[in-house]
Amino acid sequence: MVTRHIKTEIMHRVVEYNGVLYFGGLVAGDCSQDMKGQTEQICEKIDNILAQLGSSKEKIITAMIYISDFSQKSGMNEGWLKWLPPNHLPARATIGVANLGENVLVEVVISAAK
Amino acid sequence: MVTRHIKTEIMHRVVEYNGVLYFGGLVAGDCSQDMKGQTEQICEKIDNILAQLGSSKEKIITAMIYISDFSQKSGMNEGWLKWLPPNHLPARATIGVANLGENVLVEVVISAAK
Amino acid sequence: MVTRHIKTEIMHRVVEYNGVLYFGGLVAGDCSQDMKGQTEQICEKIDNILAQLGSSKEKIITAMIYISDFSQKSGMNEGWLKWLPPNHLPARATIGVANLGENVLVEVVISAAK
Repeated sequence: MVTRHIKTEIMHRVVEYNGVLYFGGLVAGDCSQDMKGQTEQICEKIDNILAQLGSSKEKIITAMIYISDFSQKSGMNEGWLKWLPPNHLPARATIGVANLGENVLVEVVISAAK
Repeated sequence: MVTRHIKTEIMHRVVEYNGVLYFGGLVAGDCSQDMKGQTEQICEKIDNILAQLGSSKEKIITAMIYISDFSQKSGMNEGWLKWLPPNHLPARATIGVANLGENVLVEVVISAAK
Repeated sequence: MVTRHIKTEIMHRVVEYNGVLYFGGLVAGDCSQDMKGQTEQICEKIDNILAQLGSSKEKIITAMIYISDFSQKSGMNEGWLKWLPPNHLPARATIGVANLGENVLVEVVISAAK
């Protein structure tokens, strides 16, 4: 059965199937911050949503990280790596893209085990 | 077991595993249309393929939407949201990318439960 | 249970859940080569990792292929299609993106059945 969580105007933030939580794209709430700050905000959002659904960051399976300013990739890495326990790092790819919305430097799409 | 459906020259349009239908990228057949029109064409393709495989749009889990002209994002949303029942909206991310092929404004990659 | 394989500084190259191997992004080791050469290197890396984990290219489910020079897409296709048995082609999308890192022409993210 497909279970949908946290409805917005355009999506469900998480859709659950076969024990996997599939997330929609998450961006920072305050996009005046730099890459590291935006990444930290996203990590906090992920923590909150995972907690709400009975999971946690140790169960993240994959992360697709889209960044619109590749020169700030190291800022994303800083925020990301200080947040995650080294033994629980997910599979990941970082893709430099053209546009994520005004002032949006980073958008993250994860999947996690419930 | 991995089951492959609808072979093309370069891929199978859908690969099935553990009850999940993983789609390859879908673009509009007629790319002279604008973002909304191209999105509508893609939605119709998804409907047809899902029907062929015994599923339907109510079972879509995730959607990755790549657009090559971010200024037309609202046109994509219009086509997308009028197509989907609000209570069955998938998790989703929209990424503005550099190039999807000549005149291709939008490409969609979904997964769905069978 | 989530099982993590092949740890690097920033990720696990593969995370396993429910019989699916989810890969992180793979790029060529020698990025002085052209699109076809870089693609071939990535295919070889995939072969090695899949063998190490008891799987093989016949079990690949999905492939997301990000290319930073869309004009060389045919070179990617050449390398990709000569590597894969036609009856085992995965679902796939090719997305032209802004930046994958210096001289990186192609990055591939796959999932495979174990």
